[in-house]
Amino acid sequence: MLKIALAQLSYHTGNFQSNTQKMLLAIEKAKAEHADIIVFAELATCGYPARDFLEFSDFVRLSQESVNTLADACRGITAIVGSPIPNPELKGKDLFNAALVLENGVVAASVAKTLLPNYDIFDEYRYFEPNKEFHLVNIKGHSIAITVCEDLWNVDENPMYRMSPMDELMPLQPELIINIAASPYSSKQIQQRKHVLKTNCQRYGLSLVYVNHIGAQTHQVFDGGSMVWNQDAALVEELAYFEEDFRVVDFKSEQGKLTPLGSAKTHNQAPSKYEGMEAALTLGIRQYFQKLGFKKAIIGLSGGVDSALVTYLAAKALGPENVQTLLLPSQFSSEHSISDSIQLCKNLGVSYEEIPIQEVVNSVENTLKPFFEGTKTDITEENIQSRTRAILLMAMSNKFGYILLNTSNKSELAVGYGTLYGDMCGGLSVIGDVYKTEVYELCRHINRVGELIPENILTKEPSAELRPDQKDSDSLPPYPLLDAILYAYIEEHLGPSEIVSRGYDEALVKRILRMVNMNEWKRWQAPPTIRVSTRAFGPGRRVPISGKYLG
Amino acid sequence: MLKIALAQLSYHTGNFQSNTQKMLLAIEKAKAEHADIIVFAELATCGYPARDFLEFSDFVRLSQESVNTLADACRGITAIVGSPIPNPELKGKDLFNAALVLENGVVAASVAKTLLPNYDIFDEYRYFEPNKEFHLVNIKGHSIAITVCEDLWNVDENPMYRMSPMDELMPLQPELIINIAASPYSSKQIQQRKHVLKTNCQRYGLSLVYVNHIGAQTHQVFDGGSMVWNQDAALVEELAYFEEDFRVVDFKSEQGKLTPLGSAKTHNQAPSKYEGMEAALTLGIRQYFQKLGFKKAIIGLSGGVDSALVTYLAAKALGPENVQTLLLPSQFSSEHSISDSIQLCKNLGVSYEEIPIQEVVNSVENTLKPFFEGTKTDITEENIQSRTRAILLMAMSNKFGYILLNTSNKSELAVGYGTLYGDMCGGLSVIGDVYKTEVYELCRHINRVGELIPENILTKEPSAELRPDQKDSDSLPPYPLLDAILYAYIEEHLGPSEIVSRGYDEALVKRILRMVNMNEWKRWQAPPTIRVSTRAFGPGRRVPISGKYLG
Repeated sequence: MLKIALAQLSYHTGNFQSNTQKMLLAIEKAKAEHADIIVFAELATCGYPARDFLEFSDFVRLSQESVNTLADACRGITAIVGSPIPNPELKGKDLFNAALVLENGVVAASVAKTLLPNYDIFDEYRYFEPNKEFHLVNIKGHSIAITVCEDLWNVDENPMYRMSPMDELMPLQPELIINIAASPYSSKQIQQRKHVLKTNCQRYGLSLVYVNHIGAQTHQVFDGGSMVWNQDAALVEELAYFEEDFRVVDFKSEQGKLTPLGSAKTHNQAPSKYEGMEAALTLGIRQYFQKLGFKKAIIGLSGGVDSALVTYLAAKALGPENVQTLLLPSQFSSEHSISDSIQLCKNLGVSYEEIPIQEVVNSVENTLKPFFEGTKTDITEENIQSRTRAILLMAMSNKFGYILLNTSNKSELAVGYGTLYGDMCGGLSVIGDVYKTEVYELCRHINRVGELIPENILTKEPSAELRPDQKDSDSLPPYPLLDAILYAYIEEHLGPSEIVSRGYDEALVKRILRMVNMNEWKRWQAPPTIRVSTRAFGPGRRVPISGKYLG
Repeated sequence: MLKIALAQLSYHTGNFQSNTQKMLLAIEKAKAEHADIIVFAELATCGYPARDFLEFSDFVRLSQESVNTLADACRGITAIVGSPIPNPELKGKDLFNAALVLENGVVAASVAKTLLPNYDIFDEYRYFEPNKEFHLVNIKGHSIAITVCEDLWNVDENPMYRMSPMDELMPLQPELIINIAASPYSSKQIQQRKHVLKTNCQRYGLSLVYVNHIGAQTHQVFDGGSMVWNQDAALVEELAYFEEDFRVVDFKSEQGKLTPLGSAKTHNQAPSKYEGMEAALTLGIRQYFQKLGFKKAIIGLSGGVDSALVTYLAAKALGPENVQTLLLPSQFSSEHSISDSIQLCKNLGVSYEEIPIQEVVNSVENTLKPFFEGTKTDITEENIQSRTRAILLMAMSNKFGYILLNTSNKSELAVGYGTLYGDMCGGLSVIGDVYKTEVYELCRHINRVGELIPENILTKEPSAELRPDQKDSDSLPPYPLLDAILYAYIEEHLGPSEIVSRGYDEALVKRILRMVNMNEWKRWQAPPTIRVSTRAFGPGRRVPISGKYLG
């Protein structure tokens, strides 16, 4: 019998003291439960992603100090811990992304990551040399195949890499696969992850222990869901999603393999699309504030669905007492923009203040009158309103220590339907990776327990209310149509002719794709956006500003 | 005798029509000069960097169409052209970064790039599979080692890669090295590039033809400086810096090697540090406007050195008639802030308007009075002034079609000494990669021909003028000291103890490094910054916002 503890923890990038302390507590807990092995996540010492902090040898030294502290606590127990380690060879990148095996006060063995993801939000080849030597690790007399995250992911029909580490390790006859991971959430990731892990168990006929991160690192959310699979490719343990968790699992040894006790899980514990999205966005807000040392958020309420959703999520993440909303009406604001917002605040228990913007707008227009005389009213005047709201929100933020939450959705960010330095302001974009049609779906999901978001906000026609009787549909196609074309371009990477071949109008497709590309300059300056899709704006999507493709 | 034409061109990412047209003209010119071979730069068909456009098969298809058009023009001449090509194997990334050999209407041969830079601003491993097979290319009976940019760069004592392509090619007995490149400018790059090319000639005893890009792609500037070296490692041809150029060079064949005619250059044609910086920033502005289809810039003039320098550079890049400046005084503005700015505009021949901001500031403060009553004046009121200026500049920009140029320098961006959505606004950050001490040096360099930037702007003490008698030195150490510490941290990647060991005060070092890390959230939303150093803020420096390292 072998007892393996899965420690699913939330780490803080670069906060070595806090990360080490958490791991030490988990080691003590595992010892108390008589575990033989405790498994932590990938790059647990320094947090993931550490990004260019990894280029500082000082930062790597601090990671190694954490390793030493942890090793010292490993007496009578073996820990598997992810940490960056120097590449001892002169040739190649300076670091390995390693799984370290700690026992009896020392680093007894190490395994470096072979497959380094370098797509979407991932930049691992920027820092790490890929492993080229394969060996099993002997722990308590068992031969274990230790792999690091992506090492198990080269199972597609169109493989991204030329080899698979498990193919190299199988001739050495491992008894079990352990995978330490930093696998971020997206609405499709949980299903995909289970498919990949199951495929490995099937292909290699081995059981699998998988330990993931949970927590948010600015724009990236890690959803946890650590797992144990048996050699029949059945899921036998599944840890919590979006929270820390800890579990000790018993393994029996027979016929040269380690097999978890317990039978296959019969119900799916993984969250549905909108459960997951709500949990990810909430965790994203909460940890952004915690990690930066802030408590309170401020949000501009327009009466529309986007700011309503963000207010709900902020109240859930931070507590309604930590959310301040501002109603910032202009002469073009409808009555319901105020009444619906007030109803929302009452439903959620968050406070609101009303600050009319007209005096400031008038002073700006008056100041510019000598220059604007004889010109026509255009987008300029709309932007002045939006930027006036931003000045007022940021002033309240500066004076009282709020973080302004941005309320732009993915559809409007995509086509540039927003004002830079206006409604595009904020420390964090909460729903910038949620299409408008998904915003409505998510609100409906939230309202399944009662009318938290007022029905009128969900049924009225979307409007920016920056000129008389303005409607989003004056400038944009209906959102279901817009979102379908955007999804094909942004998530599926289809070109114009491929999208048109799906039956969409050619002129419309070209207009929309052109809008997406032309507004790259705006998105460059957008706040970090919590990622929930397979392709979020920000570091996971890198597009030239001054390019001409489809422009 | 073999005649090789070097075509140093400015490409526009994704603008296949324009890029192809330029290359066709160059082919005609080379034919007229009886060249046997014409060499273009790396990824010339699609432009560099194409970034995630490379993930669209439609984009790759358009690149291939360009290749076909170019091949069709190659009758009696051979062209070497950089272009992305599909990886025919299922395994690995979907593309190669290739040098294609075009002759008689077809792609006669191709060589893929082996060493894929994936550091700083480079993300090539995101898109490309590295080459693993090595062969020479036969052109007109000569065996040529064709390499792509980084392929020649693994010559350091601490090599970033495990191998060097030329080591693989040497046993095949090449007669000449040709390298097609996309090597961006930095103030140290020209010297480094010559060192690398010279080292290759020395190590392999071969002559070398090197063709680089020129032009700006938003934040990246390519400086050209294509070269021909002989097998004695002497530089015999050096094309222009920061402009397009074309040259046909004669090679003689003897003892199995191709050697350029002509003797070693006796004078250094490469620009000095501040010549290069001025040229790079000017080209960066000019092509940003050209490629986005804009003509006119607007700049807020504070009376300080940063906005003065940006105005000079904009006037040089766009013509003084295309630069509009605004003087935006508040109650805290000094008299000289106006008079110095006016003098600057007169010296440069750019127009200015004066727009006092007090009415707008008053209206904002009046609107917020019910909330701010009883609070102390603090940074909030300073930010209101800065953001008011931004509203006015952006309104003028929106109404009249100007692009607002940002005037933040690298020192203040580093420590967060600026207002987000205020003076941090703009479509392009012109000097965000130039330290404050370098700003002064560059101004002195510019003024060597006469007092273009008024002397008083260069000698008065720096101030943001956001409160009575404010000076930068109230909040920051003297700039020479600040910049030295920033350089050690940002460019040299030294940790706190390493910097202290250079003799700086420990508390000061820690305070400055903490300021740099704490202001990552502001820089995330900064405009794209023209890169002139070895480590610019933006995509070349990727640091967590919610991390805790040194925070």
